[in-house]
Parts: sequence; C-alpha cells; structure tokens
Amino acid sequence: MAKRIIGTTPKQDGYRMPAEFEKQSGCWMLWPERNDNWRDGAKPAQAAFVEVAEAIVKYEKMTVCVSHEQYANARARLSPAIRVVEMSSNDAWIRDCGPTFVVNDHGGIRGVDWSFNAWGGLYDGLYFPWDKDDSVAQKVCEIENIDSYRTENFVLEGGSIHVDGEGTVLTTEMCLLSEGRNPNMTRSEIETLLCEYLGCEKVLWLKDGIDPDETNGHIDDVACFVRPGEVACIWTDDENNPFYEVAQEAYRALSEATDAKGRKLKVHKLTMTKKPVLLKGAETIDRVEGTQPRKNGEISIASYMNFLIINDAVILPQYGDENDALAVRQVQEMFPERDVVGVMTTEVAYGGGNIHCITQQQPCSTCVGKWQE
Amino acid sequence: MAKRIIGTTPKQDGYRMPAEFEKQSGCWMLWPERNDNWRDGAKPAQAAFVEVAEAIVKYEKMTVCVSHEQYANARARLSPAIRVVEMSSNDAWIRDCGPTFVVNDHGGIRGVDWSFNAWGGLYDGLYFPWDKDDSVAQKVCEIENIDSYRTENFVLEGGSIHVDGEGTVLTTEMCLLSEGRNPNMTRSEIETLLCEYLGCEKVLWLKDGIDPDETNGHIDDVACFVRPGEVACIWTDDENNPFYEVAQEAYRALSEATDAKGRKLKVHKLTMTKKPVLLKGAETIDRVEGTQPRKNGEISIASYMNFLIINDAVILPQYGDENDALAVRQVQEMFPERDVVGVMTTEVAYGGGNIHCITQQQPCSTCVGKWQE
Repeated sequence: MAKRIIGTTPKQDGYRMPAEFEKQSGCWMLWPERNDNWRDGAKPAQAAFVEVAEAIVKYEKMTVCVSHEQYANARARLSPAIRVVEMSSNDAWIRDCGPTFVVNDHGGIRGVDWSFNAWGGLYDGLYFPWDKDDSVAQKVCEIENIDSYRTENFVLEGGSIHVDGEGTVLTTEMCLLSEGRNPNMTRSEIETLLCEYLGCEKVLWLKDGIDPDETNGHIDDVACFVRPGEVACIWTDDENNPFYEVAQEAYRALSEATDAKGRKLKVHKLTMTKKPVLLKGAETIDRVEGTQPRKNGEISIASYMNFLIINDAVILPQYGDENDALAVRQVQEMFPERDVVGVMTTEVAYGGGNIHCITQQQPCSTCVGKWQE
Repeated sequence: MAKRIIGTTPKQDGYRMPAEFEKQSGCWMLWPERNDNWRDGAKPAQAAFVEVAEAIVKYEKMTVCVSHEQYANARARLSPAIRVVEMSSNDAWIRDCGPTFVVNDHGGIRGVDWSFNAWGGLYDGLYFPWDKDDSVAQKVCEIENIDSYRTENFVLEGGSIHVDGEGTVLTTEMCLLSEGRNPNMTRSEIETLLCEYLGCEKVLWLKDGIDPDETNGHIDDVACFVRPGEVACIWTDDENNPFYEVAQEAYRALSEATDAKGRKLKVHKLTMTKKPVLLKGAETIDRVEGTQPRKNGEISIASYMNFLIINDAVILPQYGDENDALAVRQVQEMFPERDVVGVMTTEVAYGGGNIHCITQQQPCSTCVGKWQE
C-alpha cells in the first residue's frame, strides 16, 4: 500500500507540490523532547507545541507524532480531536524531515522523502545522529498509505523551499548551495532536481536567509507565496536591525522577479520584531560533549514569516514584541478571507524555529486547484 | 478523533464484537524481536511472521507494527502491499494486547482496550514490564481514528475469548478465573463485564485450556466459532496425548451447550498434532536473570485451532506433523467457501503461540452482518 517509487520523478509522473494556500486534508507535527535543545526538560516547548496544534485542529485534522517515552504525556496534554501516533525522531522539525507531499490532477498523492542530514551533516549540522528524523517521512507516508519517492543522493529540508503550486520554487543560495548538503552538485543540477521533485519549471533564488548558523538560511524565515503571483517578504526600516540588509536584498530581488508563468511578483512587506528575541534559561538546557553551550542573551531567530497557512486560517507566531499586532494586521491584509490566529511561540524560537518549521501540511489530493481566497 | 469513552460500555452504547467470520477491513500484527523469547535473535520468527502477513495480505489489508529499531528491517522484509507503522511493544502478541473491535448497526466502530498484564502480572505473568504492550490497543485505535473503551480494572487478553457475533462468548475458567488477572471478581461479575464489553448475553465456560503455564489456558488453542450455532473443538483419540482429557472435556461441554439464541451447538472435531512439537535451539535464546532457562525438548503448544479466519480464507498453522494435511481437510470442511492456507509456524509455536495469537482482525464496520459462507 505504500511503495517506494524507483526510477521516476514526481514531474515525470505528473505530480507537483501544491502551494501551502491550496486546500489541505490535515497537518502533522512532532513532539519536542530533546533536553539538550529545549530548556526546562522541553516542558515549556511542549506547552507551546500544544497551543499550535490546538490552534490548527480548530480548522483541519491534526496528527502529532511522539516517541513511546512521551506518548502518554502527549496524549494527555493534547485534546481528543488530535490524533497521536508513535514515532521516533531526533528532534521536532517535521517541516524539514517530514515528507513533501505532491499531488496529481486525478486525486493522487505521493510523498517526497528527501535525504535529511540535520542541516549540514558532519560538516555543519546541528546534531548527530539524525537517523530517526530521516525515517519520519517514510513513516508518515506508511501511516497514510501513500507511495513515496526517496532522494538518496539529494539532501533537502522542506523549510528551504516554498512553491506557488504553478511551477515556481522559491529558495535561498545560502542554504541550497551550502557545503553541508550537496557540495558536489552545481546550481543548475540542483535546479533540475528541485523542478523534477516539486513538479516545477522555474527556481527563484534569494541570496541569504537570516539564520546562517542554524538552517543555513531557510526561505521560510524570509519569504513565502501568498497566492499565485504574490509573495510576502520580511521588511524593516531599522538600519540597526541585524537582518536589515538581508531583508532589503530579498525585497529587492523579489520585486524584480518573474514567476514560472511570467508574472511580475507583487511583494507584501511583513514586519520583523522591534527587538531581537534573546534566549533565557540557557542554564536549564543539557550540555553535550563537544558542542558549544547555549548562552543566555543569544539571539533566537524570531520571524513572523514563519507562519503556517491552513484551511481558512493562518497560524502566526507572536513573541510578546511591540510589533506583534502589526504582524497580525499585515498578514490579515494578505489573507483577507482567512482567520489570522496568533500563537505565542517564543519558546519554539528558543529551540531554533517556529510554527512553519514544526508543522507539515498534507494537501487534499481530491481538492486540487481549490483554495480559499 | 480518537476519544476515550468514559462511563458507558459498548453494550450500553449499542456496540458488539463481531465474530471473526464476519467481514473484515484488515488485520494487524506486531513484529517479534525479544531475544529472550525467540531463538536465534528472533530471525526465524520474523521470517515466519512475514509468511503469515504475506498470506493474509493476499486477502485483506495488513498492517505490521514494529519498533523503531527494527523498522527498516521489517519494512525491507515485508512486501510493499503491507503497511508498516512504528509501534513499541514488549513482545508480539497483538491478539492479547491489541484492541478488541466492536461495531454497531450504523457503521460505527470502537475499540476495547483491556488492561493487559502479560498473562498474570506479578503473580504468574510471563515478563515484566508490559507497559508497551498495554499501550498497543490505544495506539492502534489512534492510528485508525477509532474511539476506545479502557477497562482500568478488568484484565483480559483477546485470545481468551471467542464470540459468535450473536450474543455468545466462549472462554475458559482456567484463564478468566485465574489468580493473576481479576482475583477479586466473582465469576458472575466477570460474566457481566464480558457481556457489557462484548455486547453479549451469554457466556459459555469451558474448564481448561492446554497451556496452563503460558496463557493459563486461552480458548483460542481449544475451540472457536465457525459460524452461528457451530463450533470447532480440538480432538484426539490418542489417550496418550497429554491434552486428551482437556479435549474430551471441551468436546463434551460444547456438545451439551446452547448459545445465546438457544441453539444447541454443532461441534466440529479438529485434530491435534500426532506428535508433540518440542523446542529446539533453546541455547540461542537469551537468558534472563531470575527466570528458568528454556530447555530443548520442552513441549511447545502447537494447536491447529490457533487459526485465523479472514475474508475468503482461513490461515492455518502447519507444523511438519503427520496430521498437517488432516487439519487442512477438516478446516476446509468447516469453511467450504473459504480458501484454507497453511503456513508453517513451528517457529511461532516455539515462542508460545500461533497465528491467531499474533494477529488481530479489524472488522469492516460498514459491512455489518455480511460474511461469506
């Protein structure tokens, strides 16, 4: 019921990755528990993940995957409307280690199971081993009886790409051309693989992301598609913001870009936090031999761009920052017919990501072409 | 999507356990890996489990649940038609630790998640701990989005009961009145709980099973329902067979019994093996502190009765015994419109059970009342 597809690509087989704003059949998360990444035994992070899951399940089906050790706890913390299934993982970033779902025009759905190496493998990855994470995509597909493609020789995380569902991929050079992923591939070879596995025609490259040390600059902290022909991009007028130049450059590049259909993109500005989010409680994070200890006062990447689009809603990070309300207003303007639901996720930012990083939407394969606007 | 139902019973809610011969939507197994129960690192047992799963999946959907450690191995050994999902367990007897499914007349299906204590808990159970086994039923129900009843104060294994789907439960006193399960309950209280959780009216008690030291005499080695009003019962004419008296007594009791509908039962005889199946290779089974070592030459319980009825087929244990072919003929006579598929499962018998013990059928809730005869 869940085969590995050998010898062809999604594009060859008539499949494409739908845009996040297309209709979904549900959403997946993993449960956080690494004491060497999350503070206070991961308990505050678990509470934040619960808030995110509960926000999503008001709009669509939600499955949370959790190790046996935390199964009973997760089951007890999550409402009965949420499905809880056992699944091992090395951490909780299902955007990056989960499957990228692709669909065809006949109700078919398949998974792309990218090779995952913890954001850079032994070169500059964030932990070792990553074998449990790397099996998450296959396990999700098995549960759903979905056939999958495995890219044995192509390392990619779901957070490093966005698509418009109409032939365009958006990504960053900082990540996809990094030394720790596919160092022997040319930019052109990578473009070909992206187009083959996502069913696309054109790759739009931004230069940098805002977290070079963690994901090597995932696109999902910088920009995303709002609908075909329209993108959102981080923005600040504050020249002292550490990401001022990255944001300026991304905005400029997107404003000049045309998509696979030849459309000039409309670019929506999305504010950044007024103040940086700084790590607190680092002393409660387990130390690991051979790695730098986490320090109080470190900048935690906290981008409002890391929101998740779901059926009828957008789930948006909030940080207790002065610009929280502005971000809600700006996202509401981009998505006038969806609810904008803010969830306080500073705790997720402390761990290295946010709502988009900890979720993976599953498109509704029988609703292809339908989305709300 | 998968609630725990509190305060009511299946019977009160209009649910009943369907007979095994009613239409099924699929079947579940666990993957064996305990080196202190299965010989040679459980590799021969895994091969036998694969044979059983492959026999079943020719007729209906099959899901095999496996720990993370063995996931890749199980996935590679099983054909793509079989779904493989991660699930922790203490051993591989999903008949006993999995859910008992109950259905209503309106397409509804729920699970009964019996308290499980490894066949007798600290009194005379077979291993400790059993917490992973005890969470299997809930996890299966979660994957399927099926609500479940949990019997916190009632210990039962699925292999200790059979039902005719029309109000009758068949069980043994040796097991259900054992000291290691519900020692503070009267026989009458146990009857009430069986009827409440299985949606039944009448309990037929046999005295003994044939494995007092393992499951305390599960019914599924002794007798089962073939169709409403008809049962199969183990039989031997050989007075030297160690189970001669148990079989005689079971046959006598069943021949005199009437079911919940007042029908006198028709009893089909099913042969036992000509020779006992004796354990070999015990020296490759890991030793465990505080338990008796397994010994070569020990009798392994090897009952042809431990077959599984599925859609259009019966999957029947074979042992390389002189009576293997006779068992196939007898079962074929009981089920003239089903295929009878023999699978060599001596290796499963070495571990303490057989095909019925290692499987759990999931009824088709939308096909209630339909079965093949």
